[in-house]
Amino acid sequence: MIKIGVELGERSYEIVLGTGILHQIGEVMKSMEVSGKTAVVSNTTVFPLYGAPVVDSMKDAGFEAFPVILPDGEEYKNLDVLTRLYDELLGIGLDRKSAVIALGGGVVGDIAGFAAATYMRGIAYVQVPTTLLAQVDSSVGGKTGIDHAAGKNMIGAFWQPKLVWTDSETLRTLPERQLLAGMAEVIKYGIIRDKDLFGYLELNRERILSRDDETMLYLIRRSCGIKAEIVSKDERESGLRAVLNYGHTIGHAVETVTGYTRFLHGEAVAIGMLLEAELAARLGLLSSAEVEKIRGLIESFGLPSGIPDDIDSSALLSSMQLDKKALGGALRFVLPERIGKVRIQTVATKELMRLFRD
Amino acid sequence: MIKIGVELGERSYEIVLGTGILHQIGEVMKSMEVSGKTAVVSNTTVFPLYGAPVVDSMKDAGFEAFPVILPDGEEYKNLDVLTRLYDELLGIGLDRKSAVIALGGGVVGDIAGFAAATYMRGIAYVQVPTTLLAQVDSSVGGKTGIDHAAGKNMIGAFWQPKLVWTDSETLRTLPERQLLAGMAEVIKYGIIRDKDLFGYLELNRERILSRDDETMLYLIRRSCGIKAEIVSKDERESGLRAVLNYGHTIGHAVETVTGYTRFLHGEAVAIGMLLEAELAARLGLLSSAEVEKIRGLIESFGLPSGIPDDIDSSALLSSMQLDKKALGGALRFVLPERIGKVRIQTVATKELMRLFRD
Repeated sequence: MIKIGVELGERSYEIVLGTGILHQIGEVMKSMEVSGKTAVVSNTTVFPLYGAPVVDSMKDAGFEAFPVILPDGEEYKNLDVLTRLYDELLGIGLDRKSAVIALGGGVVGDIAGFAAATYMRGIAYVQVPTTLLAQVDSSVGGKTGIDHAAGKNMIGAFWQPKLVWTDSETLRTLPERQLLAGMAEVIKYGIIRDKDLFGYLELNRERILSRDDETMLYLIRRSCGIKAEIVSKDERESGLRAVLNYGHTIGHAVETVTGYTRFLHGEAVAIGMLLEAELAARLGLLSSAEVEKIRGLIESFGLPSGIPDDIDSSALLSSMQLDKKALGGALRFVLPERIGKVRIQTVATKELMRLFRD
Repeated sequence: MIKIGVELGERSYEIVLGTGILHQIGEVMKSMEVSGKTAVVSNTTVFPLYGAPVVDSMKDAGFEAFPVILPDGEEYKNLDVLTRLYDELLGIGLDRKSAVIALGGGVVGDIAGFAAATYMRGIAYVQVPTTLLAQVDSSVGGKTGIDHAAGKNMIGAFWQPKLVWTDSETLRTLPERQLLAGMAEVIKYGIIRDKDLFGYLELNRERILSRDDETMLYLIRRSCGIKAEIVSKDERESGLRAVLNYGHTIGHAVETVTGYTRFLHGEAVAIGMLLEAELAARLGLLSSAEVEKIRGLIESFGLPSGIPDDIDSSALLSSMQLDKKALGGALRFVLPERIGKVRIQTVATKELMRLFRD
């Protein structure tokens, strides 16, 4: 097993990576300040595949474990489903010593994490991410929340998990489209912080697509290492952490104006990364050769790299104005200076409009 | 003006007390890290009385101030109203630098505070409490949340305000029943921590009922001083802070089984305080002479002191089992040893059933 620490004082926790480790989670949770009833929150796709080893392991370790099954899809990361989740957790009778286990991808992790953050003013939760995107990104760092018609993750909380328990075996059943969407976030780490990782991805496409355990654990370890380091320095995104939003300002807007249904999160981020690289090039920050390297890697993983013609650019712009990253009307972007290094820069709306027009 | 500090490191803030100070709030908020749009969340009763000075003061200080008016009553502290509140805040377009001002009693403070805690993962909020209960208790300490059919405050967060701005003038229009309900929490501070305050209340009933500004500021200052000291030592109620729940274990159950409509919070706490004092006497912790002093003070302010016959004690018991203060099945109570001193003690369900039966 590989262990990566997220250092946050009394909120510190470990990310544990391995292959075939789901059935060991109960034993590990026995050593945590958790007791009695636990809820295993999952969805209709993941629970039939991986619910049994988690629930059995919890029971073997002396916990009561209650499955709570949500519908599968980003469109269910909303207040209605959250309301039903609260009803279920209260029906089970979780108390302040209880834990919520989030078994699934980013949607399950975000909504179950937010329910844990706000159940009786906050109880423990553990992330068991089963998609690549959740394993390299959303399970780490304590961002929880739900979407609103007005924008993604508009309602949420910072609430750190007590443990992230990642099993690469769960990737074997992941639909290819989801695997590729997860790769968008891995590519992001390469661009913002790790030129070597970017190079590794260029050279190891086949091994990644075949989901070789060792290769996947390497990607997850590099990605989580970067994220853990950044989150440890800036838990609540007052500065540095914003670099993780590379590709996300435009990406979120793309998701919002298409109602969260047309693109997976990672696909929207891929579009956002390339457009933000182009924006960086326009502003003279990034060479066009590097823009093309970014385009090449994104496209080699079958990810979308441009905004489809039928999407209205003025809707994208107004969606970005409401984005959490909009501050007093100005728009801040994370822009690459070269592969492996980014900076945060305020960009005039005029400049953005030109980007979308051309 | 009187200032009381709540010391919580980077989350520290001041409670400011005065008479006729509502119109100064904008000026004070200019010195805080807040800018642009603000929402003044209030209710249909309070806003017509005190909305104008607050909104005007914010505008004069250069903020945009948008009123958001909720229905008035504890029965509206729920997910439906919270959902509408989110819609309104998103419609206004609050961003991460925005603030929410909660102008009203405990319900407005709790729900607006929770909305602020979870809007874009947390923005600033300021409490402007206009009921005695909110001024002496709920506006201080960062407990925010909403009720659920399964229990009071079941969904919520710890989220500290940036400022508490209390104007004793707002008490002049407070309905007498609400004033008396607020007195229940003041009596609580006397019992848990301040024998002198208890004695002052016994001697100054008339001045309190006439809402003399100086007298009310004295009560608020003593109460907030105790609460600030306790919260500073134990923000998230891992130990000491639990003493503030004296009267609340039974009080919350009374509110829950009566659907939050029959008793005001303070009235239910009054019932709870006397029953928990009787429980303490049964367990040999408190003399019956002190139980009678507590009963006398509660009744002198026209507060209920017993559970009405038509309330089913088994429903109360099962409601308490789900209470946030129930831990792994056991029930913890805050019990007085004498006026001015309490202890936390686990009580067997058997003992409780006997209390309700007799």
